[in-house]
Amino acid sequence: MRVVESIKGMQDLSESLRRQGKVIAFVPTMGYFHKGHLKLFEEGRKRGDVLVVSLFVNPIQFGKGEDFETYPRDFERDKGLAEEAGVDVLFTPSAEEMYPEGFQTYVTVERVTKNLCGAFRPGHFKGVTTVVAKLFNIVKPHIAIFGEKDYQQLVTVRRMVKDLNMDVEVVGVPTVREDDGLAMSSRNTYLSPEERKAATLLYRALKEGERLYREGERNGRNIVKAVESVLRRESLIRIEYVKVCDPETIEDLETIEERALLALAARIGKARLIDNLLLSP
Amino acid sequence: MRVVESIKGMQDLSESLRRQGKVIAFVPTMGYFHKGHLKLFEEGRKRGDVLVVSLFVNPIQFGKGEDFETYPRDFERDKGLAEEAGVDVLFTPSAEEMYPEGFQTYVTVERVTKNLCGAFRPGHFKGVTTVVAKLFNIVKPHIAIFGEKDYQQLVTVRRMVKDLNMDVEVVGVPTVREDDGLAMSSRNTYLSPEERKAATLLYRALKEGERLYREGERNGRNIVKAVESVLRRESLIRIEYVKVCDPETIEDLETIEERALLALAARIGKARLIDNLLLSP
Repeated sequence: MRVVESIKGMQDLSESLRRQGKVIAFVPTMGYFHKGHLKLFEEGRKRGDVLVVSLFVNPIQFGKGEDFETYPRDFERDKGLAEEAGVDVLFTPSAEEMYPEGFQTYVTVERVTKNLCGAFRPGHFKGVTTVVAKLFNIVKPHIAIFGEKDYQQLVTVRRMVKDLNMDVEVVGVPTVREDDGLAMSSRNTYLSPEERKAATLLYRALKEGERLYREGERNGRNIVKAVESVLRRESLIRIEYVKVCDPETIEDLETIEERALLALAARIGKARLIDNLLLSP
Repeated sequence: MRVVESIKGMQDLSESLRRQGKVIAFVPTMGYFHKGHLKLFEEGRKRGDVLVVSLFVNPIQFGKGEDFETYPRDFERDKGLAEEAGVDVLFTPSAEEMYPEGFQTYVTVERVTKNLCGAFRPGHFKGVTTVVAKLFNIVKPHIAIFGEKDYQQLVTVRRMVKDLNMDVEVVGVPTVREDDGLAMSSRNTYLSPEERKAATLLYRALKEGERLYREGERNGRNIVKAVESVLRRESLIRIEYVKVCDPETIEDLETIEERALLALAARIGKARLIDNLLLSP
């Protein structure tokens, strides 16, 4: 596995790989790898000749008071895991090179970023789309792989790619969960044992919403209420939002026609956790 | 010369050219070619193996009440001129394909777009950077060529390319002028014979500013005043701005240290014309 730190070095490597006709698969990450990441790497290995993974805790997607400073980092561990997982190139740029003095250009996706996390984390998606646009220009992938756990992020990136005619295929990979259903997240490390136990309710609440949908409930409000009432059983959970929305536009759905995204965000201790299920016949 | 209309067709063509190791030079235009464009094409031919020119009157860079509808268009004439000038590929996408329903992603350069034209044409540079980002993703050029007549645009595109790590070399080409000094512009066609005569004062006023600079004047205000007083000799000219600013940050300069951009915009009849000179020892 090659570790590349410089932007120019990565760009030149990717350019030469493309010239050789190699298909580049790319997984952008913030590191602190868990099984969710490993699943993305596996998908990348399957789809590309060369798998590039970026490891960069992107400062501009964190708001004030968010966890940029405390976000878990362990480069040596990540390097080992990436190597084991068959990653070919680990790209680890510095914040100084990514955002030098004078930096002032941003990519904004206007509508699909308004609801859900976008409503609670102002500037977050602007930071995400900007760094993903930069990484695409540096890594020059044919295929880019994102987890469905961050569903709004996936929709936002897809929208950016389509709108800006980026010649990249965006692939979404289903959420990987712990045995008790908790969605894998680097932020799960923030949880105390007690909080960790409480966190299992997030998925159980979503499953309750899904059960209602399966039974024929099509009223978004009713599903939201049912999910919230499961979450309220646990005083350690502070609900940020529970929403039923259109999976493409990310707008609230009063009545589900066919498919819907059931998404939630909650705070447990120091962690802000998100999860979602796609409701689909 | 090939004429390509579809985005996918252009992308595939560029991808295959790059694979063959060809250097792609690109000139984005809004058409209605004049000698200024031809000079850009000449530069492109010199620098690349393949010269791609886009012809697209970009709706999103025009504000309300601006001249999108009346902007001069003559595809057959442009096609002939491009062919004569040795253009290899003329890319002419439709507005429908460039901005389909649901389009919502924009690229914004925040600071260098604030002054000069940015202050008078809200949203203009957002439209420019968005379309240039799209065109770069479609045409995949190694080199992109812009005229210095639109100096703030050139600085803005350079900033975007640098900030978003676009692997494109941006080349600026000096303004081409009529014999009497008027900067070539497709919008000069809006001028009546009388207005056309009045328009020569724009360049003469800039030259007066330059003369003061050559004589040692380093106070921005004094240079601006001198330029304005030349322009005021002609009642057909309505000044929009005359500014002395930093050529990189596009911020107003009170005192010129070394180099400065002397830029102006004025309305004459239906035309809004811009021009500039770089003051440099």
